[in-house]
Amino acid sequence: MQKIGIVGATGYTGFVLISTLLTHPEVKITLITSNTYKGKKISGVFPLLKGIFEETLEPTDEDHKGKCDAYFLCLPHGSSMEMARRLYDGRAIIVDLSADFRFEDAALYEKVYIPHIAKELIPKAVYGLPELYRDRIKGARLIGNPGCYPTSAILAVYPLVKNGLIAGDIFVDSKSGVSGAGREAKLGSMFCEVSEGFRAYNVGVHRHEPEIQKEVNKFAPMKVTFVPHLLPMNRGILTTVYSRLKEHAATKDILALYRKTYDGEPFVRIVDEGAYPDTRFTRFSNYCDIGLKVFEDGRIVIISAIDNLVKGASGQAVQNMNIALGMDEAAGLKSVPQYP
Amino acid sequence: MQKIGIVGATGYTGFVLISTLLTHPEVKITLITSNTYKGKKISGVFPLLKGIFEETLEPTDEDHKGKCDAYFLCLPHGSSMEMARRLYDGRAIIVDLSADFRFEDAALYEKVYIPHIAKELIPKAVYGLPELYRDRIKGARLIGNPGCYPTSAILAVYPLVKNGLIAGDIFVDSKSGVSGAGREAKLGSMFCEVSEGFRAYNVGVHRHEPEIQKEVNKFAPMKVTFVPHLLPMNRGILTTVYSRLKEHAATKDILALYRKTYDGEPFVRIVDEGAYPDTRFTRFSNYCDIGLKVFEDGRIVIISAIDNLVKGASGQAVQNMNIALGMDEAAGLKSVPQYP
Amino acid sequence: MQKIGIVGATGYTGFVLISTLLTHPEVKITLITSNTYKGKKISGVFPLLKGIFEETLEPTDEDHKGKCDAYFLCLPHGSSMEMARRLYDGRAIIVDLSADFRFEDAALYEKVYIPHIAKELIPKAVYGLPELYRDRIKGARLIGNPGCYPTSAILAVYPLVKNGLIAGDIFVDSKSGVSGAGREAKLGSMFCEVSEGFRAYNVGVHRHEPEIQKEVNKFAPMKVTFVPHLLPMNRGILTTVYSRLKEHAATKDILALYRKTYDGEPFVRIVDEGAYPDTRFTRFSNYCDIGLKVFEDGRIVIISAIDNLVKGASGQAVQNMNIALGMDEAAGLKSVPQYP
Amino acid sequence: MQKIGIVGATGYTGFVLISTLLTHPEVKITLITSNTYKGKKISGVFPLLKGIFEETLEPTDEDHKGKCDAYFLCLPHGSSMEMARRLYDGRAIIVDLSADFRFEDAALYEKVYIPHIAKELIPKAVYGLPELYRDRIKGARLIGNPGCYPTSAILAVYPLVKNGLIAGDIFVDSKSGVSGAGREAKLGSMFCEVSEGFRAYNVGVHRHEPEIQKEVNKFAPMKVTFVPHLLPMNRGILTTVYSRLKEHAATKDILALYRKTYDGEPFVRIVDEGAYPDTRFTRFSNYCDIGLKVFEDGRIVIISAIDNLVKGASGQAVQNMNIALGMDEAAGLKSVPQYP
Repeated sequence: MQKIGIVGATGYTGFVLISTLLTHPEVKITLITSNTYKGKKISGVFPLLKGIFEETLEPTDEDHKGKCDAYFLCLPHGSSMEMARRLYDGRAIIVDLSADFRFEDAALYEKVYIPHIAKELIPKAVYGLPELYRDRIKGARLIGNPGCYPTSAILAVYPLVKNGLIAGDIFVDSKSGVSGAGREAKLGSMFCEVSEGFRAYNVGVHRHEPEIQKEVNKFAPMKVTFVPHLLPMNRGILTTVYSRLKEHAATKDILALYRKTYDGEPFVRIVDEGAYPDTRFTRFSNYCDIGLKVFEDGRIVIISAIDNLVKGASGQAVQNMNIALGMDEAAGLKSVPQYP
Repeated sequence: MQKIGIVGATGYTGFVLISTLLTHPEVKITLITSNTYKGKKISGVFPLLKGIFEETLEPTDEDHKGKCDAYFLCLPHGSSMEMARRLYDGRAIIVDLSADFRFEDAALYEKVYIPHIAKELIPKAVYGLPELYRDRIKGARLIGNPGCYPTSAILAVYPLVKNGLIAGDIFVDSKSGVSGAGREAKLGSMFCEVSEGFRAYNVGVHRHEPEIQKEVNKFAPMKVTFVPHLLPMNRGILTTVYSRLKEHAATKDILALYRKTYDGEPFVRIVDEGAYPDTRFTRFSNYCDIGLKVFEDGRIVIISAIDNLVKGASGQAVQNMNIALGMDEAAGLKSVPQYP
Repeated sequence: MQKIGIVGATGYTGFVLISTLLTHPEVKITLITSNTYKGKKISGVFPLLKGIFEETLEPTDEDHKGKCDAYFLCLPHGSSMEMARRLYDGRAIIVDLSADFRFEDAALYEKVYIPHIAKELIPKAVYGLPELYRDRIKGARLIGNPGCYPTSAILAVYPLVKNGLIAGDIFVDSKSGVSGAGREAKLGSMFCEVSEGFRAYNVGVHRHEPEIQKEVNKFAPMKVTFVPHLLPMNRGILTTVYSRLKEHAATKDILALYRKTYDGEPFVRIVDEGAYPDTRFTRFSNYCDIGLKVFEDGRIVIISAIDNLVKGASGQAVQNMNIALGMDEAAGLKSVPQYP
Repeated sequence: MQKIGIVGATGYTGFVLISTLLTHPEVKITLITSNTYKGKKISGVFPLLKGIFEETLEPTDEDHKGKCDAYFLCLPHGSSMEMARRLYDGRAIIVDLSADFRFEDAALYEKVYIPHIAKELIPKAVYGLPELYRDRIKGARLIGNPGCYPTSAILAVYPLVKNGLIAGDIFVDSKSGVSGAGREAKLGSMFCEVSEGFRAYNVGVHRHEPEIQKEVNKFAPMKVTFVPHLLPMNRGILTTVYSRLKEHAATKDILALYRKTYDGEPFVRIVDEGAYPDTRFTRFSNYCDIGLKVFEDGRIVIISAIDNLVKGASGQAVQNMNIALGMDEAAGLKSVPQYP
């Protein structure tokens, strides 16, 4: 059994990691940490776990190096790079769920976020989107787990940009459930400020835009416009992408291209022509569902759906760990989407 | 007091008309009809109205011609044109909330909907978007009340297309609360099929697309792509429009153009630079809020919000009636948005 | 026009007061205060009010004595009594929405809450439940506006306890929307901690229990058990009361007693036999709806519904002000319940 | 591998059975039926299952006798008894999720429901509440799976009534998510008729009341009053029970009695003193959580929470099958509750 540490275990991604890893046949959670709740049982923070998992939270700010075979960092950006530096030993896998190791280009990271204090680790880090970078993830010891929005957006456009089929702008209209904002009390995440309302936020200035942009630009030069919106629901991201193909193609041919591109992928499902994804169909699972329509003049609409806390965060993190540790990529991730 | 008839009063638009008109100082509801609930008190259908408005529903299928000064038709398309023909006398105002009189071009209507059986009335009908057609509404006796999505989309792009500022495609990504689907029991509108999920529907084939398209094309030739989505909430439409300006302009200049275009409009509010509409801020009111951002290379995002049952339906219908009858345009529509 | 001050205007009760008073024909809001947002426009806090009401917030901690004809205090308990002492002049009406003047017995207040620092005002205060104490409210200058749960519970049992019909325990099972918890950011009010869940809280220790108990005990000696629950919705309280009648009676006879007791009340509606209240039917209105059923052996279930922010707070506060100022009791409160 | 048939597989209980049994290590679903969707793939009805489980629905109205080792009947009452008669062969296990085999007394069943047409099977049926009747379930071939409300109510009061500790009435105030109403389109289950509202229904006439009553009366004679309410959420039942103990006892002593009564039960969790269940903590799991408080004068409040579709229906059905087939009772039911 591989020993697993979850650093910063009391947020939503921490909870989903715990509940996912508890069903994983080859790992054992041996370390959970929190500065706020240190010394408390995790089942006191998440009463759902009562009778199932009753371990005690250790302080995050302690030396945990060498204790585990894999660490998941569920810390704010900034704290994460510091922790990575403390834990990195070239042996244990570190999957960082913050933005700190998502950018190959430190200068771009620093433009979008803050000064980077662990630049020496950036060349060792791999962007953990398995559908694009599985081979590199295999040998990695430090994995920058992608953002939730970028996961949904990049998987939606990858077959097109990889094959140079897009002309012009890429408009990415994303809608996320509230859990994407984390588990800290703030006015904008309160029930009465979210329920029965819908709004865009961070229009054109969201930090996931450069993350999408840099991935798109590895293949093609076009501009990405990204507008996130806040859905009055807990989980799920639906991303609707608008663009134009260089040359008109039939919807079924582009769907065939998507099926071919993602052939063998355990967690990408291309829906049938005329059908479109619903976040409901991926809820509590690691799937990314994708559907699309091409118009008679080459305009194209692509729609993708994920569970932001699973494929958009903790599930993908486990998928990355599985790959890096050479285990069954889907181990612990075989749950069926749940409904209603 | 003007006598008002609501034909088909037991749906959501019927309810909102009743509750709106009950606060209108110059009208009195003298006729409410329903075939399904005929002979029943309206407060039996909507217990909210108990002690407030207890009138009895008359059969829709009876001769109501000449009884009222204004009629609101809340019937399915097809039934509406038939009813309009029966009620039209060149004196009473008819505001039709269906699609039957929204298209000046019968052939286009028939392509999108069904054969039109009251074609002689089409030339008499006015498209009831006051911000564009107030002058024509003033003398009208038959008003085709706009669709909810088109109201939000057209008001969002009108200042741009009117002034010939747009280059290229117009991508309209709209999200609506469930009340837009009406008050008939259907699987797709059930709580467990809507709550905690989000999906696109009728991608590229929704019948509001040609309605938006024909209005845009009165000013400019560009293609409109329209994708509606279903929000897990009761009321509200947020529309996010993506396009490109012919020439770059500052956000504040375009906002100034919007303010000028809608100057004096009682129900359009242009939000400040850097802020964006929230459906919550227009809920239970007749406002349409609009915000926007121009990017450094001319890409533009425009966001509008309305309450789909008020400015998107019954409130706009009352606004149209007020104009047509020469009353205060805002009479009955002075309610403050409600929250939370 | 009477001049109105709202002290602490940036919470939910403040907003509802503003939106209610804006439709009131005989008053004008001349003062709104907030320490947190002082100097800011209220429409910056509540963008719903943009273009409707754009006044600037003054600091709460300033001398506002003598400025207004009526003050509404929307402050936490403790702060409220201090403010009442500062504003009280025997002329202006003070309606306090906190608990500070709800208890005639200072010792009981202090047992439940904190030391009372304005005890000299307690004898001047009236418990502002118009259906029970209208006559006393008429001359009052200081009104302790009832708690939301107590309003729903007391109105539900008053006709029975007043007439000495109850035997044994009174079990009060109440369920409230989240707005009852106020507009401060806290973990327990976050969307993801409320949505798709339901729980009891403060079982047997909620501070509204003594408030209900003391009102019941004015008429009868029985024990009240009170369990509040948190509903995943914005507004509304449904209270289900379980008890036993001393002697069996027919449901219709007890309903007749309720109708007689509340005869002429503008805001109490007794529903028909076999029907029961729904919070939805009172939403955004000042109504309290009540229904009940008597079982063959004298057990009785009484159900009441209110909007916790209207009849349970700001609406009732305006009703109290109207009575105290000798105006139409329903002025500003004529809005029709809104749905969906 | 045991062969499993799900008769009537396209409702919510059918879906939950499928998703549960797919994770069960010792069974294989070999038959799924539906008259409405016969010939269609189940993944066409539930797109969540795409790529996971793609079997074709057979007609319900065909001879399926002898095909499976265990059948789950997810049919309306009436249809279920007919199907049970057709499938019963004294070998295969039949777990009926309808009410048809919940009553040992045919006359009582017929008073509450409809004439019973398979009375000869009633003596063979066992009421499938494992915590009370595990020994009888072991040898059973026909199991009447309990109602959702009765499961929550009976488990809440069983330790008290079994030990004769209750005096007087038992008031059961239950609140359920909408999925309890099934997956058929009806006005009362529509999003706009449920969201942002809360109501009681079937007050004193719900058919689960006699089911709770007959179980209570096996131990003690007191009357049960049952009022169900509809929560604006998908899943979960919270039941709050009010009663009186014959003699006062400390909360911790009654909690100890509950712990002892349910000692070794895999799916009952007694919460700590001062804490209370939340439906959120049992969501998507087979747990029933119970908490309680005794007042100084013997009044008692007991609160239980379940997922109505799992412990209240399909999960308990699988638990029953596991017991009857002599497998690990928790097989397939080891999922961790999910949140948010």
